[in-house]
Amino acid sequence: MPKNAFYAQSGGVTAVINASACGVIETARKNTDKIGTVYAGRNGIIGALTEELIDTSKESDEDIAALRHTPSGAFGSCRFKLKGLEESKAEYERLIEIFKAHDIGYFFYNGGGDSADTCHKVSQLSEKMGFPIQAIHVPKTVDNDLPITDTCPGFGSVAKYIAVSTLEASYDVRSMAKTSTKIFVIEVMGRHAGWIAAAGGLVEDHDIPVLILFPEVEFDQEKFIAAVQAKVEKHDFCTIVVSEGAHWPDGKFLAEQGTRDAFGHAQLGGAAPVVANMINEALGLKFHWAVADYLQRAARHLASKTDVEQAYAMGKAAVEFAVAGDNAIMPTIDRISNNPFKWEVGKAPLSEVANVEKMMPMDFISEDGFGITDACKEYLIPLIQGEDYPPYKDGMPQYVTLKNEIIDKKLDPFEV
Amino acid sequence: MPKNAFYAQSGGVTAVINASACGVIETARKNTDKIGTVYAGRNGIIGALTEELIDTSKESDEDIAALRHTPSGAFGSCRFKLKGLEESKAEYERLIEIFKAHDIGYFFYNGGGDSADTCHKVSQLSEKMGFPIQAIHVPKTVDNDLPITDTCPGFGSVAKYIAVSTLEASYDVRSMAKTSTKIFVIEVMGRHAGWIAAAGGLVEDHDIPVLILFPEVEFDQEKFIAAVQAKVEKHDFCTIVVSEGAHWPDGKFLAEQGTRDAFGHAQLGGAAPVVANMINEALGLKFHWAVADYLQRAARHLASKTDVEQAYAMGKAAVEFAVAGDNAIMPTIDRISNNPFKWEVGKAPLSEVANVEKMMPMDFISEDGFGITDACKEYLIPLIQGEDYPPYKDGMPQYVTLKNEIIDKKLDPFEV
Repeated sequence: MPKNAFYAQSGGVTAVINASACGVIETARKNTDKIGTVYAGRNGIIGALTEELIDTSKESDEDIAALRHTPSGAFGSCRFKLKGLEESKAEYERLIEIFKAHDIGYFFYNGGGDSADTCHKVSQLSEKMGFPIQAIHVPKTVDNDLPITDTCPGFGSVAKYIAVSTLEASYDVRSMAKTSTKIFVIEVMGRHAGWIAAAGGLVEDHDIPVLILFPEVEFDQEKFIAAVQAKVEKHDFCTIVVSEGAHWPDGKFLAEQGTRDAFGHAQLGGAAPVVANMINEALGLKFHWAVADYLQRAARHLASKTDVEQAYAMGKAAVEFAVAGDNAIMPTIDRISNNPFKWEVGKAPLSEVANVEKMMPMDFISEDGFGITDACKEYLIPLIQGEDYPPYKDGMPQYVTLKNEIIDKKLDPFEV
Repeated sequence: MPKNAFYAQSGGVTAVINASACGVIETARKNTDKIGTVYAGRNGIIGALTEELIDTSKESDEDIAALRHTPSGAFGSCRFKLKGLEESKAEYERLIEIFKAHDIGYFFYNGGGDSADTCHKVSQLSEKMGFPIQAIHVPKTVDNDLPITDTCPGFGSVAKYIAVSTLEASYDVRSMAKTSTKIFVIEVMGRHAGWIAAAGGLVEDHDIPVLILFPEVEFDQEKFIAAVQAKVEKHDFCTIVVSEGAHWPDGKFLAEQGTRDAFGHAQLGGAAPVVANMINEALGLKFHWAVADYLQRAARHLASKTDVEQAYAMGKAAVEFAVAGDNAIMPTIDRISNNPFKWEVGKAPLSEVANVEKMMPMDFISEDGFGITDACKEYLIPLIQGEDYPPYKDGMPQYVTLKNEIIDKKLDPFEV
């Protein structure tokens, strides 16, 4: 009898994590000799612990296919980190109970670095706690910080969104600079690494003067203001892409400006208005600013085709590796060439993935610290290539909401 | 001999104002018996006053066609309001000199309410200052506040962008609400009218709990917090669309919270963080917020096909009316039916357009003040229908930058 599978989405969701779910479920449906039902955790791993298991076999082929073009986490995700096998022993024992009760032999975990670590620990349940399970990690994170794989599904679409949005807003500012706004600041995600901010630098090749504030580069106000002034003198306007993680030499984020509201409460108001006001005070230039926030990681309407294909391929490969007997691995994207862009699916042992953070190479940042290098552009451009539009009806994208039917519980409740 | 034409873009630019420019220039090129060269003002009307006239005949048919899919103002725009014929007599006399020197007999002004007023005054130059000119206003404004016309080109695309972005971000929040963010606030444009905020309300029909803060409705903090709490109790999350023009009963904008930075300077930080922090203080819920700013009006990548077609049609009609001998008019969009959506081109006398502001009908706002009515949805949905994607290369939209060659000056300089 084929074993059932458990699939969960973990951490911040993306425009394409459901494309990975689609890859997992569609591929499992083609391997019914090896895989029975795919159960999805309601709200991620929490759904396993609380025995809220969604029966994905109740979803039509059509709805599962629609996951490919639907952003967000269709089964719900969560931020919940399991600790070591000893520290979180109760949780791992509970997982084993759940797996036993529902005859689960495959564990597919779709997430970033922390989740890879959890997946690694689950993969060890077999050896350390005597329960046979194959655990495969499906990579996902807009932070692009998983090691070994060329990129992480989710990142390419955010990169495309930021590059296109920065270009469009910069065209707008360029039109009006003579008598109006000369400074446009856009704040982007990336608390620890500047991957997303780097994507804003792609507008440079479209004749847009742009300065980037990376988390990797300590903020130097004097140097920055001088750089802005130089751009404005030459082009009459300047676009600034600021990472939410941009910080002062002492580590304090730019967003933490000691701003207080009328009641004296500290407010964290975003880095963009701080940078915009700083430029205005120094140079007296009119500004506008935007904070893209969730818009950037949810923007399935502008997803990168490359990213969608890679996300689907990671889900598909996870199941194929599982069916072939693999455990404790993560499918990877292996880049073969830039031009034409070629890549293939590889795999990495979770022992080499867990707790390793891939930082942006310093040779991706230009010497002055405010731009990206050609090496960075060569890396980024393939990742934003191609469009993969969702279907529309009455002007709105047709995103799917699944039935998400929870199966009957067999065990006692468990406190999470 | 055919007279030359002058075309200028005015005020805040949009995703489709260049589609109107495309309509003007392509139609003029088909009417060479009546219209000679189309000169475009460099940075709007300022270019006429300073004699910085762009010779659009130097642009290839291909580049002019590409204007249809290029956001922003290709010739530059400006915020510069001419006053009455007496008050701004020097400027009007200068315009006549320019028109004479360059044999201009047609004046096409592409803008919103203030520009319609200027265009109206130029149309009177013939009668009041003895200079023959036909002045036609081409409607454009994301504010959607011009009278008589069903809508204003530029608005439909912003509405689509806000509706889609709000939907996508809300899906994201819904996925994570169990353990993370429950409140998402998106700030949208519209200082005086809630047209754009209303578009956010379209997500309600996609199972998203949403509350809108309109400039038309005085902010009632207690009622608002209660409404948020009710939504969160029912759905576990809530999306809030706040207009930049949302204000307290005394008229003070929500964005003006008396916030001060570390140096004691007043900061205008946007309404979204104010609303988000207010909810957090009252209900202790985790929040995220976004400020779309220029991203929304520049987002040609997600333009409404209806909007693009209407923008082009307005430019085309302006030239056709001019060729037919009209003066002092504005082409209009006349809605014939909602379903199927049908509209045709009409025209309105500028005397009835200038200085009249169309407000959002109060029966478009739901009784509790936080939503939109069915009548509003019936109005909005046709305007966001259809997609009209720009061509892409290497992952980025192929927007055109024109040559913008300025012709030789014939007159003495003029101080603007």
